[in-house]
Amino acid sequence: MDSTAILHAVDAVFDRELEFLAELVRHPSTRGAEQSAQDFIAGELAGLGYEVDRWRFDVADIAGMPGFSPVIGNYEDAVNVVGSLRSRTRGGRSLILNGHVDVVPTGPLDMWDRGPFDAHIDDGWMYGRGAGDMKAGLASNLFAIEALKQLGLRPAADVFFQSVVEEECTGNGALACLQRGYRADAALIPEPFAEKFVSSQVGVIWFKVRLKGLPTHVAYAGSGANAIEAAIPLFEALHRLEHRMNAPECRHHDYAGHSHALNLNIGKIEGGDWASSVPAWCVFDVRMGVFPGQDLDEMRHMIEEAVLEAARSHPFLAKNRPEIVYNGFAAEGYSFRDHKGETAREALAALDRAHSLVAGKPLGHEAITATTDARFFGLYADTPALVYGPRAEAIHGFNERVDLESVRRVTQSTALFIADWCGLEKA
Amino acid sequence: MDSTAILHAVDAVFDRELEFLAELVRHPSTRGAEQSAQDFIAGELAGLGYEVDRWRFDVADIAGMPGFSPVIGNYEDAVNVVGSLRSRTRGGRSLILNGHVDVVPTGPLDMWDRGPFDAHIDDGWMYGRGAGDMKAGLASNLFAIEALKQLGLRPAADVFFQSVVEEECTGNGALACLQRGYRADAALIPEPFAEKFVSSQVGVIWFKVRLKGLPTHVAYAGSGANAIEAAIPLFEALHRLEHRMNAPECRHHDYAGHSHALNLNIGKIEGGDWASSVPAWCVFDVRMGVFPGQDLDEMRHMIEEAVLEAARSHPFLAKNRPEIVYNGFAAEGYSFRDHKGETAREALAALDRAHSLVAGKPLGHEAITATTDARFFGLYADTPALVYGPRAEAIHGFNERVDLESVRRVTQSTALFIADWCGLEKA
Repeated sequence: MDSTAILHAVDAVFDRELEFLAELVRHPSTRGAEQSAQDFIAGELAGLGYEVDRWRFDVADIAGMPGFSPVIGNYEDAVNVVGSLRSRTRGGRSLILNGHVDVVPTGPLDMWDRGPFDAHIDDGWMYGRGAGDMKAGLASNLFAIEALKQLGLRPAADVFFQSVVEEECTGNGALACLQRGYRADAALIPEPFAEKFVSSQVGVIWFKVRLKGLPTHVAYAGSGANAIEAAIPLFEALHRLEHRMNAPECRHHDYAGHSHALNLNIGKIEGGDWASSVPAWCVFDVRMGVFPGQDLDEMRHMIEEAVLEAARSHPFLAKNRPEIVYNGFAAEGYSFRDHKGETAREALAALDRAHSLVAGKPLGHEAITATTDARFFGLYADTPALVYGPRAEAIHGFNERVDLESVRRVTQSTALFIADWCGLEKA
Repeated sequence: MDSTAILHAVDAVFDRELEFLAELVRHPSTRGAEQSAQDFIAGELAGLGYEVDRWRFDVADIAGMPGFSPVIGNYEDAVNVVGSLRSRTRGGRSLILNGHVDVVPTGPLDMWDRGPFDAHIDDGWMYGRGAGDMKAGLASNLFAIEALKQLGLRPAADVFFQSVVEEECTGNGALACLQRGYRADAALIPEPFAEKFVSSQVGVIWFKVRLKGLPTHVAYAGSGANAIEAAIPLFEALHRLEHRMNAPECRHHDYAGHSHALNLNIGKIEGGDWASSVPAWCVFDVRMGVFPGQDLDEMRHMIEEAVLEAARSHPFLAKNRPEIVYNGFAAEGYSFRDHKGETAREALAALDRAHSLVAGKPLGHEAITATTDARFFGLYADTPALVYGPRAEAIHGFNERVDLESVRRVTQSTALFIADWCGLEKA
């Protein structure tokens, strides 16, 4: 196989890839609103000769599986799409090309320079919510295969193109693909980590803390208990826990040099109804990281201890205990090194070869401080999951953007990796 | 005039008064939803022989008047009702009987023992949002007149029964009555201050503080700025200001013995969109009290100084100044003692006589730490405004309730006061 031909073939399809990406970014696929994006992808897959599986998954189907996270809302509109490209010859190793189509909320629109779903291109960057995280990855997965087809070739093993939902809050979309029976010898997930291989990822727990107050007319504020301000000592207690968990002696070996891998984020708050009433309630949402191998129940226990200990020192909360509700991420960490077999080693070597050829330097490794859907393949299906994608900026922020030349390089690396891992057969 | 006959006449109409009150409480007249309650009142007034004026007021009509407060939302549904009872003889002094029909939000329903609009009666108390604040007062105003009619009598001066909206957030409903031209020699407002005469009331300023953050994926939380947590030093700065304003040397003479008359309340908060995004925005609502005679602009200046000084010490807010928006209350304080003429002295003496006869002891005075609509009559129409109403508990809280025997006594005092102040003529 001529590698140069593959690189050129990616160049040849790259305009189509950008059009696909721009169209995908224009679908505002925040959680619960992914259907139009999924319809678009399903239509494209069908047009490109994939066998398309588009299904709504049920909580009941996955709730008993390891890795399941408590659901926020319901799954009436939770639709996954998988396109299968079956090999005739089956001479190589099969592959899952996974990406998530859900994006996080835009936040206030006036903080964006342009509409967050405009897919505007400027100076080599495409802007938009989800452009980097991770619609560029979905485009790269799809057009790596298109590049091979351009050469009259296709993978010599089954390839499953997955477009899943729920990555940003639970991962239950990827889990539903496992439940549906999709398996392969490796998985590739082009999350935007700047063309580095994600050697390790943290786990994530989401929880909500509900506080009650003692409401009164503010004229008698002294006799009330302000539920909003009662949250402050709990924030402090949670940050103290965060600090302890990041201490050198607590760190997982993949994060030994990382001074602050486990971030605790107070991400959302709501409380009170009326400026002149002492607020009777307050709810805040927290995200906390955990190291690979760390037991989630143990971390939950520490969270509860921290919150309740702080509450015990508060005159009102001592008798009105905060309520902690876990919903959303119950995600374990995942270290690629924990795969002991040859397959993982070979998959990573193949990715390294592809990357080195495109980038002109060896593949860098990074232990990331976020989670990805890789954990489902790696932890619960014994499938090495390679996370490797383009460079993006301001993901989850304003003016999120992805570097288009980086997208081109990742598409090239991906095409080379597929040729190596799966082998090629005539289209 | 036989006082005892008037007391008995109130007893005779008291069942009707309770029915009226219960029906009124059952109308959930939170801000913007007062129409059904106002329709009910307008219908009752018409049936009882009042000349009824029911009108929607426009912001444009009142925006230039002293005492106007910036509007929250719009006034498409802001309806006042005034019932006029004109005297033939006009031998006495005219009177405005004022009350507000708007109520504050209920807060979470599960914190109420019963539905907040059930008007449930138990052990001499009626429960419900607004039962005390101040639908009982509206009932008392109306049935004091009904008691006189029961005796074949009516006031020998014009009486205007006012049911206004917007008391709980701006006072613009009472202001609209002034704009409409309603004037009288005195006003009575039966706000629920436990049968005490309100000799002084504080002013109130409402404001919103908007904070921006620097949003990022929580994986890079160190590079972001959490807009929710950025609010904490601003809370502290505002409470320091509150503390300073309550210092003995800052107190108005009516509040000399009051250690904490000016309450600052963080009443509402909202911020962030997603547990795993460093929140990019946060907005909180504050209520601050001011003393009678204190200039509102001066207080606004101190609020801005406090917020901005705290912001200057914050790494992110220093360059991203919080925005302060004033909406809702821009209410000055009001001290009854500032009325210099005979009218005010005589009105208070008449109320004292009425109360003493009913209660068997002299009228107590109280300088309250809240505002009422009395300021409009007192400050902007030179009309002595007597605030005197029944005993209630948990106003603005859960299980708000009003003491029904207290309502009876206030109705009796009001009927005696009307007889004294207005004089009586044959119905």
